[in-house]
Amino acid sequence: QSSVTVFGVLDVGARSLKGVSSIKYLHKDGVSSSRLGFRGVEDLGGGLKAGFHIEGALGSDDGSGGTWQRRSTVSLMGGFGEVRLGHQKVAARTIVDDFDAFGTTGIADVSRLYTLTGTSRDWEINRTSNQVSYFLPSMGGIYGNVDASAGEGTNAANKMISGRIGFKSGGLHLSAATGNQGVSAKLKTTTLAGSYAFGSATVYAMHTQNKQAGMATNKINSLGLAYSMGAGKLQGSFAKATGGSKLIAAGYDYSLSKRTGIYAQVARTDNSAGKRFGLGGASGATAPAAGGDSTGYSVGVRHSF
Amino acid sequence: QSSVTVFGVLDVGARSLKGVSSIKYLHKDGVSSSRLGFRGVEDLGGGLKAGFHIEGALGSDDGSGGTWQRRSTVSLMGGFGEVRLGHQKVAARTIVDDFDAFGTTGIADVSRLYTLTGTSRDWEINRTSNQVSYFLPSMGGIYGNVDASAGEGTNAANKMISGRIGFKSGGLHLSAATGNQGVSAKLKTTTLAGSYAFGSATVYAMHTQNKQAGMATNKINSLGLAYSMGAGKLQGSFAKATGGSKLIAAGYDYSLSKRTGIYAQVARTDNSAGKRFGLGGASGATAPAAGGDSTGYSVGVRHSF
Amino acid sequence: QSSVTVFGVLDVGARSLKGVSSIKYLHKDGVSSSRLGFRGVEDLGGGLKAGFHIEGALGSDDGSGGTWQRRSTVSLMGGFGEVRLGHQKVAARTIVDDFDAFGTTGIADVSRLYTLTGTSRDWEINRTSNQVSYFLPSMGGIYGNVDASAGEGTNAANKMISGRIGFKSGGLHLSAATGNQGVSAKLKTTTLAGSYAFGSATVYAMHTQNKQAGMATNKINSLGLAYSMGAGKLQGSFAKATGGSKLIAAGYDYSLSKRTGIYAQVARTDNSAGKRFGLGGASGATAPAAGGDSTGYSVGVRHSF
Repeated sequence: QSSVTVFGVLDVGARSLKGVSSIKYLHKDGVSSSRLGFRGVEDLGGGLKAGFHIEGALGSDDGSGGTWQRRSTVSLMGGFGEVRLGHQKVAARTIVDDFDAFGTTGIADVSRLYTLTGTSRDWEINRTSNQVSYFLPSMGGIYGNVDASAGEGTNAANKMISGRIGFKSGGLHLSAATGNQGVSAKLKTTTLAGSYAFGSATVYAMHTQNKQAGMATNKINSLGLAYSMGAGKLQGSFAKATGGSKLIAAGYDYSLSKRTGIYAQVARTDNSAGKRFGLGGASGATAPAAGGDSTGYSVGVRHSF
Repeated sequence: QSSVTVFGVLDVGARSLKGVSSIKYLHKDGVSSSRLGFRGVEDLGGGLKAGFHIEGALGSDDGSGGTWQRRSTVSLMGGFGEVRLGHQKVAARTIVDDFDAFGTTGIADVSRLYTLTGTSRDWEINRTSNQVSYFLPSMGGIYGNVDASAGEGTNAANKMISGRIGFKSGGLHLSAATGNQGVSAKLKTTTLAGSYAFGSATVYAMHTQNKQAGMATNKINSLGLAYSMGAGKLQGSFAKATGGSKLIAAGYDYSLSKRTGIYAQVARTDNSAGKRFGLGGASGATAPAAGGDSTGYSVGVRHSF
Repeated sequence: QSSVTVFGVLDVGARSLKGVSSIKYLHKDGVSSSRLGFRGVEDLGGGLKAGFHIEGALGSDDGSGGTWQRRSTVSLMGGFGEVRLGHQKVAARTIVDDFDAFGTTGIADVSRLYTLTGTSRDWEINRTSNQVSYFLPSMGGIYGNVDASAGEGTNAANKMISGRIGFKSGGLHLSAATGNQGVSAKLKTTTLAGSYAFGSATVYAMHTQNKQAGMATNKINSLGLAYSMGAGKLQGSFAKATGGSKLIAAGYDYSLSKRTGIYAQVARTDNSAGKRFGLGGASGATAPAAGGDSTGYSVGVRHSF
C-alpha cells in the first residue's frame, strides 16, 4: 500500500434565513464545507515529488455525494515549483477565500455580494475543469500561481485564465489576483487584499472589481477581523458593494480539539435600491426583496478527519 | 492522518422470485446490504468524544453507488449521551431491524408486510435527512433515543419525529418505539418487541401497528428464531398482517470466518383477499396477484471488511 | 480495522484529435484510465481466501465519478481456483487489453477498430453486471476463466457468456478467448493472441473476429511492440480491420518512479471506403469522414497510488 490519506469534514448545523419569507433548516456548511477526500504525495527522489488530491462535496445533512468536484488533481513538484493538472479552484477565487474572515463559507460568505445583477449567483469564477496550473516554488515569502482552463470546444463557460501573486512575512500577508472566464460574455475579476496578524488578532481588507461587457461593474470592499481567546475565536466582517448594498456578520467558533469545534454566527444583508443580495444558502423566497434586507443565524458542529 | 476506518460489505448471490411471473437474478443484499463507508471517533478529552459515520449503498452486482444515503452523521458523545446530526435510520425503524430474525434484509424482510395498501412499499419510515438525534448514555441496560427531522419547507415527507426505548440484560432484550412522518398524510407507527437468548437459541416476538388517516390500520405480528450450531446459524420467521396475509421464511448462514459467510434462504408470502404483499426484491410482475402467493429462494456469499 | 487498500490512478494530459474537425482538450486516460478503488483479501484458513475489489472511473480532468463500474466483485479463492461474483470486464475483453501494446487505453486503443459498422462504438463486449465467473487455479503456466452474466429479464444486452484460456511460460504468452453477448442481435467475438518477450523487447500479435447476424463480419489483425530502455519504454502498434482500415500508433513512456510517469503518443487511423474508425476519445466531428483519416497526439502524466 502506498501512503493514501483519507480525509474529510462533516459540518452540520441549524440555520435560519429570513428574506421575503423565512426558513429554518439543517445545513452542511456552517464554517467549513462538508467533504470527503483522498490525497497522497510520493517522493520521486532528486527533489522531485508527485502528488494527487481528490475531494468531493458531502451532504452531511442528506447523504448526497458522489463526485470529486471540489478538487481532482495530479501534481509534479520540485525546485521549479508545481505543475498541477485537473479540476480545482482558480487563483481569482482562492484569494477571496483567504481574505474573507469567513472563508466564503456559510451565511456570511462575502462572495454573495460579488454578483453583477445582484440577484442570482452569476459570479461564476470558482472552480474549473481541464485546468493546467503552475505554482511558483517558495521564495522568501513570495508565492504565486497561474491557471488556465480549456473550453474544449463545447464548454465556453469553462474557458478561464487566472493568476495570483502574494507575499507573506511575519504577520503581514498581501496578495493580488486577476482572472477572466467565458468567451463572448467574458467575466473579468481583479482583487487586491491584505491581512495583518498581531497578537491574538488578525485584520483583513479586500477590494474586488467584477466586470462583464454590457453590465454595470461591481466593486466590493470588505473588512474582516478574527480574534482568538484561548480555544475560542471571534470573527466579524463588513462588506459593501457598488450602489451601497452591505453585508455584516459576526461569529464565534469554539475548538473542542484541533479537529472538532462548535460555532454560532449571525449575518445580515442590507440592499441598495433594486438589489437583492442574499446570505449564503439563500435562494428564491429566502432572498431579500429588491432593496430589502435579509437576516440569518447559524449554529452547528464541525468535525474534520 | 487521523484514524479513519474504511469499511463495507459485499453481499452477492442468486435469487429466484415467483409471483405473477418469475425471475432469476443476481442480488446485492442476501443477508446484509452491500455498502461502503468511512467512520472514526476522536477523543476530545474530559470524557467527550466526536465521531463521524459515512455509509452508502454499493451495487455489488452492477457497480452502482455514489451517495452516502445509508448514513451520514456527525456526533458529540459524553457522559450526557450522544447528540447526532445528519441522515440516518429513524428509531421507529431500527427496532424492526433488530427484532426481525432476518434484519429486514433479503427476501425474508418482514417490513414487506408493513405497507398499508398491501401493494407497493408505501411504509416510508426508514431513513430521513436533516435529522437531530439524542441517544441516552448507557445506564444499566437501558438505552433509548429520540430523532426529529425537518421538512425544511419544501420536503414534507421528510418531516419526522420518532423515539425508542429498550432494556437489555442477560439474554433478555425488550424495546418499544413510535414515530410519525409526513405532514397532512401523516404515517404513524408503533412497535413493541422482545427477544430472549438461551443457550444457542434466540427467539424474537414483535408487534407493529401502522396507521394513516383514511386507510385501514395494519397490525403486524411476527415471531423469529435463530439457532447457532458451530459456525452455522439456522433462522426462521413467521409474520402475519391484518387480514391474514402471512410471510414465512427459513434460512441457513455458515460463517467461513468472522467476516465471510455463505447462506441459503427460502421465503413465501400467502396473501389474504385483495392483498399483494411480495418478498424482498419483488416489484411489478414478481409480486403476487391479489390474494395470491409468492415464493423466493436465495443463495449467496457475504464478505465484510 | 481489517486490511483495506485504497488505490487509484490519476492520468491527465493534453490531447489533440483531428478528424472532420479538430479539438484540443485535457483527458483523463492517456496511458491508463483514471480511477479510485478499494480492495482487500482475507485469509480464511485451510487454503481458502475471500476478497473484494471495488473500482470506479475518476474524472481527473473534471472531477466526475461516483459509481464503481470498472469493477465491483467479491471472490472466494482456494485450491479449486476462484469464484467471483459481481460487475467486471469479461474474458473476451481482457484478452484484447492484454495483447494491445497500448492496453486499449488512450488514442491508440486498438478496440476502436473493433466495431461492425465502423462508425460508433457498437462493439459492446467490455464489462457486464450480474456476472458469475470461475477462474482456474494456477497450473504450470496455464490460466483460464469463464464468465456468465444474467440478462435478468429486463436487460437483454447484459446477457453474456465468455471464456478465455492462456499459457504463460518464460517469455511466451499465448491466449484464446470467445464470448457472445445479447439475445436477438447477439454479438460474437473470438480472439487468438500471442506475445513473446526477449531481452528488452516484447512483441504482440492478435487476431479478432467480430460477428453479428445481418452485418458484415469484421476481422482485425494487430501487431505491437514494447521496448524498454532504462526507465523509458517505446511502444508501437499496427492494426488492420476487414476492408483495409488501419490504425498505427507510437508512444513513449518514461517512469519517474514505479508509480509515476510521463508519456507522449501519436496515432492515426486511415479508413477504407465508407468506414469512419476514429481514435480513442473521438466522437462526432472529431471522427474522420467516411473513408477519411484522423490523427491524434497525447502528452501527459500518470500517477498511481
